[in-house]
Amino acid sequence: MSDTEKKTIIEPRTLKGFRDFGAKEQLARQQMFARIQTVFERFGFSPLSTPALEYKEILMGKYGDEERLVYSFKDNGDRDVAMRYDLTVPLARYVAQNQNQLTYPFKRYQIAPVWRAENTQRGRLREFYQCDVDIVGEDSWVADAEIIACYAAVLTDLGISNFIFKINDRRLFEILAETDEEKAQVLQVIRCVDKADKIGISGVMSLLEERGVGQKLQQKIQGILGAGKGQEALQAFAKISPLASELVSQVQAVISLAIRLGVSEDSIVFDPTIARGLDYYTGTVLECTLAGVEGYGSVVGGGRYDGLLDTFSNKPLKAVGASLGVDRLYEYLEENGKLTGIGGSQVLVANMGQSTWENVVAVVRQLREAGVNAELYYQDGVKLDKQLKYAESKAIPYVVIIGETEKAKDLAAVKNIQTREQQEVPLNNLVSYVKG
Amino acid sequence: MSDTEKKTIIEPRTLKGFRDFGAKEQLARQQMFARIQTVFERFGFSPLSTPALEYKEILMGKYGDEERLVYSFKDNGDRDVAMRYDLTVPLARYVAQNQNQLTYPFKRYQIAPVWRAENTQRGRLREFYQCDVDIVGEDSWVADAEIIACYAAVLTDLGISNFIFKINDRRLFEILAETDEEKAQVLQVIRCVDKADKIGISGVMSLLEERGVGQKLQQKIQGILGAGKGQEALQAFAKISPLASELVSQVQAVISLAIRLGVSEDSIVFDPTIARGLDYYTGTVLECTLAGVEGYGSVVGGGRYDGLLDTFSNKPLKAVGASLGVDRLYEYLEENGKLTGIGGSQVLVANMGQSTWENVVAVVRQLREAGVNAELYYQDGVKLDKQLKYAESKAIPYVVIIGETEKAKDLAAVKNIQTREQQEVPLNNLVSYVKG
Repeated sequence: MSDTEKKTIIEPRTLKGFRDFGAKEQLARQQMFARIQTVFERFGFSPLSTPALEYKEILMGKYGDEERLVYSFKDNGDRDVAMRYDLTVPLARYVAQNQNQLTYPFKRYQIAPVWRAENTQRGRLREFYQCDVDIVGEDSWVADAEIIACYAAVLTDLGISNFIFKINDRRLFEILAETDEEKAQVLQVIRCVDKADKIGISGVMSLLEERGVGQKLQQKIQGILGAGKGQEALQAFAKISPLASELVSQVQAVISLAIRLGVSEDSIVFDPTIARGLDYYTGTVLECTLAGVEGYGSVVGGGRYDGLLDTFSNKPLKAVGASLGVDRLYEYLEENGKLTGIGGSQVLVANMGQSTWENVVAVVRQLREAGVNAELYYQDGVKLDKQLKYAESKAIPYVVIIGETEKAKDLAAVKNIQTREQQEVPLNNLVSYVKG
Repeated sequence: MSDTEKKTIIEPRTLKGFRDFGAKEQLARQQMFARIQTVFERFGFSPLSTPALEYKEILMGKYGDEERLVYSFKDNGDRDVAMRYDLTVPLARYVAQNQNQLTYPFKRYQIAPVWRAENTQRGRLREFYQCDVDIVGEDSWVADAEIIACYAAVLTDLGISNFIFKINDRRLFEILAETDEEKAQVLQVIRCVDKADKIGISGVMSLLEERGVGQKLQQKIQGILGAGKGQEALQAFAKISPLASELVSQVQAVISLAIRLGVSEDSIVFDPTIARGLDYYTGTVLECTLAGVEGYGSVVGGGRYDGLLDTFSNKPLKAVGASLGVDRLYEYLEENGKLTGIGGSQVLVANMGQSTWENVVAVVRQLREAGVNAELYYQDGVKLDKQLKYAESKAIPYVVIIGETEKAKDLAAVKNIQTREQQEVPLNNLVSYVKG
C-alpha cells in the first residue's frame, strides 16, 4: 500500500452463516476439543487431517438432495473443486487411497470445520465443526459397542450425565420385508420412521400410507414401533423369526458390552423408532439425546455403514462410526455453566514506572517460567486504576503490584480483582500464591 | 445411494498442493500446536477463530502481486467470496468490526490453515497452517519485545536452542532519505534490502542501481549494510543524526528487554539487512532463523505495522505481530527426532476368546479410566500372533494378555513389543506397570 494513496474504508463484516469466535468462547471451545481428543485417544483412536478442498467428483453422489449445499467452484487451474461437506467422505477417500498402507481396523478421529450453503433463516451456520470417530475394516459388533462407550466417556468427561443412547439395527426393518415388493420399500420405510421424533408413530403410519407402502408391511411396522422400547420390545421382536431372534441377540450384546465398557444402564436403550436419515447405514444405528433438553436434537448420531467405501475401491471395507454435534454441545455446556474459569491470563503485573521496571520484568518472567499465564502492562505512566480496569475487563484474577515500597521489602502487593482485597506476598512465595 | 444402481469407481486422489496427515504425523502436529498455544497463553495471548470464507472485497488490495493467488469464487447466493489467505487481514477486519467491544491492547493468537493457489512445482503447498500472535492498539516498544520473547519461549519449549532473532527498524531507512526524491524511493530500497539473504549486499547494491535509486541514497545504504551487525553497527548508525540516535536507543531497548524476558543474549542481534517483504511494516522488523540450517528460511517473521487496520476503520490502531512457519518448523522437528514418542495407544488388550472376555473388557475399562490410551482387539478367534502384529504395526508398546491361566491367578501377562519380553503382572498393579 502506498502511503500517498487515498484509502477507501471497506465495511468490516462477515458472511451470513459464518462467524468469529472471540477470546472467551474460543478458549472454551479449544478446551472442549482438547478434552474430546484426549478421550478419543484413550479409546485408541488416532487423528486424521484431510484438506478443506477435494476434487468435486469425490464429493458428488454421496449426499442425495443435500448435494446442492456443497460449496463448489473452478479453481485457478480450471479444476472442479469442492469444500469439505462432512468428514465421512474424505475418510472413505483417504482409506481407499492408502488401502494397502493402513493397519486394520483403522480407527481414526477428526475434528474439523465443514461447509454447507444452508438456509441461514433457520438459524443454521454455513461453517461449523464436525467431530467424528470411525472404525474401518472391522465387521465385529464389538466395534459398534466401542463407538457408543467412547462417546459416553466423552460426555461424562465434559460433566454431562443426562445423556441417553438409543440403539436400533436397520436390518430389523429388512427382516420384516418378505416379498420383493416389500423389500424394495425398506429404504422408504426407514426414511419415514426417521421422522418419528418429530411426527410421532401415528404420523409415521400416515406417511407410510401416503408413500404407498403396502398394507401388510405397514402392519408389521406398526407392531414394532408400538412395542415400546428396551428389553420388552426386543423380546417381542425376537419372536418374529429365527433371523430376527439372532439379530436381537446381537443388539443385546452391543448394549451389554457398552455397559461393561462404562455406559450406565440407564443411559442406553433399544429404540425401534431410531432409523437415521442418511441412506448409507446398513446395521446398528444410534442417536444420543440429552434428557430434559431434547430440544437440542441429538448430540451424537451414527451407525454401521458397510457400503460407503465401495465408491472409491473394489475391495469393500466395513465400517462403523458416529458424529458428535460439537457446536450444539458447546451451546449446551455454555448455557449450563460447565465451561467457566477456563484459560486466559491469571496475573497482570502492573507497570509502576522506571524505578521498579527491572523487578517487574523479572517477576513476569518468573511467573511464566513457572507455567502461570501472566501479562505485563506495556504502557509507561498509566495510573494504577486504569491498569486494574484492564485486568477487570479481561477477567484476570490477580494484579501484582511492585512499587518502591514493595521493591524495598522484596515483596509484591497482590490485588484480588473480584474481592478487591490486597495482600503482601514475599516474592519467593508469589508463584504458589497465585497458583492457589 | 440405491443398492441396485451399478457403482462407478471414482479414483481416490487429493488435489495438487493439498495433503492428508495420517495418524503419526497428525498426533505430532497436534502436540506441537498444543504446546505453542500453551506458551502463547502464558504470555497473555487469547485465541481468535475467524471463518475460512470472507467477502472477497475484505481480502483484496492487501497482498500486492500475490493477490492472484487468492482462492475466490461466487457462492450460491452470487456473492463474491474468498478463502482465508493469511491471518492478519481477518484480524484487522475483526478488530474494526468489534472496535468498541474489545479491551486494548488486544492480544490474540490464531493457528489455522490458509489457502493460496501457489505454483506447486516449487514444492509449495496450497493449504498450509499459519500461526500468528499480534498485539493491537499498543504503540509501546515494550510490546515489540514481548513478541520476540514469546516466540523465543515457544522455540525453547519445543526443544530448539539454535535460533537467532535478527532485529531491525524500517525507520532507519526512512531517516536516510533527506530529499523528497529520496523519500519516494524508501519503499523501493526496503524491497531491495529484503533480498540481501539471497543475493548478498553487493547484489542489493546492483539492484538499487538497476531500480534507479539515487547515488547519494545508495551510498548511505551501503554504509549501513556494510557496518555489520550488533552493537557496533548500532553505534555507527547512532552517529548519523539525533533522530537516528533516538531510534537506535529504542532498538537497543527492545533487544535488552527481550533478553530480560528470557531470550539468551546470543539469540538476538541487530541486523540492518533485515527489511521484510511486505509493504505494510512501519517500525520494528524481525526474522528468526535456525543456526546451521539456514536453508529452512526464516521460521518466524514479523514486525510493527501501524497502518494496516486503517483499511476498515477511520480510527487507526497501532499493531505489532509475528508469524511462525509451523509447517517448516514441523519438518525441522521431525527430521531432528524431537517429536518421537508422542501420543497413540499405550496398550493393546488381546482378545483371548469368550472364556476370559469379561476380564478382558474389565481391564480395558480400568486402564482407560486411569487415563491410559488402551485398545481392545475386536475380532474373536484371531491368533495371538496376529494380534501382536497389529500392536507392532501401530507401535503400541504393551500387549496385555489374559488367558485362562492368567485369569485363574488374577494377573495379566504383559508383553513388551520392542523387547519381546513378557512379564506377569498382578491386575491391581497393571495401571502403574504400563504407566512406567
